[in-house]
Amino acid sequence: MKQSVHKLEITTRGQGLYEFTSEVETWLRAQQIHTGLLTVFCRHTSASLLIQENADPSVRRDLKSYFSRIAPENGPYEHTDEGPDDMPAHLKTALTQVQLSIPIANGSLVLGTWQGIYLFEHRTHPHRRQIVLHVIGE
Amino acid sequence: MKQSVHKLEITTRGQGLYEFTSEVETWLRAQQIHTGLLTVFCRHTSASLLIQENADPSVRRDLKSYFSRIAPENGPYEHTDEGPDDMPAHLKTALTQVQLSIPIANGSLVLGTWQGIYLFEHRTHPHRRQIVLHVIGE
Amino acid sequence: MKQSVHKLEITTRGQGLYEFTSEVETWLRAQQIHTGLLTVFCRHTSASLLIQENADPSVRRDLKSYFSRIAPENGPYEHTDEGPDDMPAHLKTALTQVQLSIPIANGSLVLGTWQGIYLFEHRTHPHRRQIVLHVIGE
Repeated sequence: MKQSVHKLEITTRGQGLYEFTSEVETWLRAQQIHTGLLTVFCRHTSASLLIQENADPSVRRDLKSYFSRIAPENGPYEHTDEGPDDMPAHLKTALTQVQLSIPIANGSLVLGTWQGIYLFEHRTHPHRRQIVLHVIGE
Repeated sequence: MKQSVHKLEITTRGQGLYEFTSEVETWLRAQQIHTGLLTVFCRHTSASLLIQENADPSVRRDLKSYFSRIAPENGPYEHTDEGPDDMPAHLKTALTQVQLSIPIANGSLVLGTWQGIYLFEHRTHPHRRQIVLHVIGE
Repeated sequence: MKQSVHKLEITTRGQGLYEFTSEVETWLRAQQIHTGLLTVFCRHTSASLLIQENADPSVRRDLKSYFSRIAPENGPYEHTDEGPDDMPAHLKTALTQVQLSIPIANGSLVLGTWQGIYLFEHRTHPHRRQIVLHVIGE
């Protein structure tokens, strides 16, 4: 049994979903794990992770606008120091997640045909987001 | 340390929660793991996983109707090609999760007394849903 | 490769976020794991887990009041036997999660600077909540 940890940085340019499935798969292939468990962890409280449809981009636009409707910028928030997009960003992160674990079988992630791994950026301004990958298996 | 991967198929007949705790436990018992970590992964973007109360079925009915209220079929969606239940299904999946990991101690999942493992089907029509189980431990 | 399992009990005094990052870190240090994966599991369906900002406490107050707005006590619920806070507690648990896994690198959790581990209590009355920790690594 072996393990490995890796840090990825993802540059975002405003709110929305940024796919990084291929970055994860490229690193994973180099680890030569036939069976195992991959964990993706996002080191932020205003950006999160989502496994979502990788086909029609309108799904991602609808996801972005839906989360902005249920966690709007003009809510009755106490925490407003960092701008109107800050507290909604924390709420959207709480409603989604900062960690995903995906089994590996036959040397590949067991993602479904339509599943991609996305960083969900909730802040308006560009950011560099840190993702940690961990794999265990053999 | 050993690992094992298994595929389960769950047949759904419309929106709602389908418990499959016993299918997971049956497979797990055969793996003879005393201490470890079980991961359940759902290979879809319009069905998700939930650990919820396994006692009063009214909780499941309330969960189903609540998620239909907060992600309604008549929302202002761009992605409508696959029917009115399609985009709400993606939203409900994003609001819940497609992966759960549960520790194993003394040969059993550490689920609480009232916790069951559910597939949350978000589409109206019947589907066959693919679940992947992974366990690591000894 | 080694593993370890531990039970934590967290006493809550009504709805809100209770940080227990230091309890997790204290136990983890004693396990002497340099690289690995920590899993935190909450054995309840009316309390959940959240990784959120550990700096400004107004973020936690806003999180608490936001979830009470989107899962209100006066909703059209069928399941009301255990009081008005019961069904909202199940909904808030479904909207967040009962499990978190965090990679370990260089002997520490890879949490971001502003990330803390919280129990999110959704019931009004005091409770003792059971958390299970599992670590695998070496």
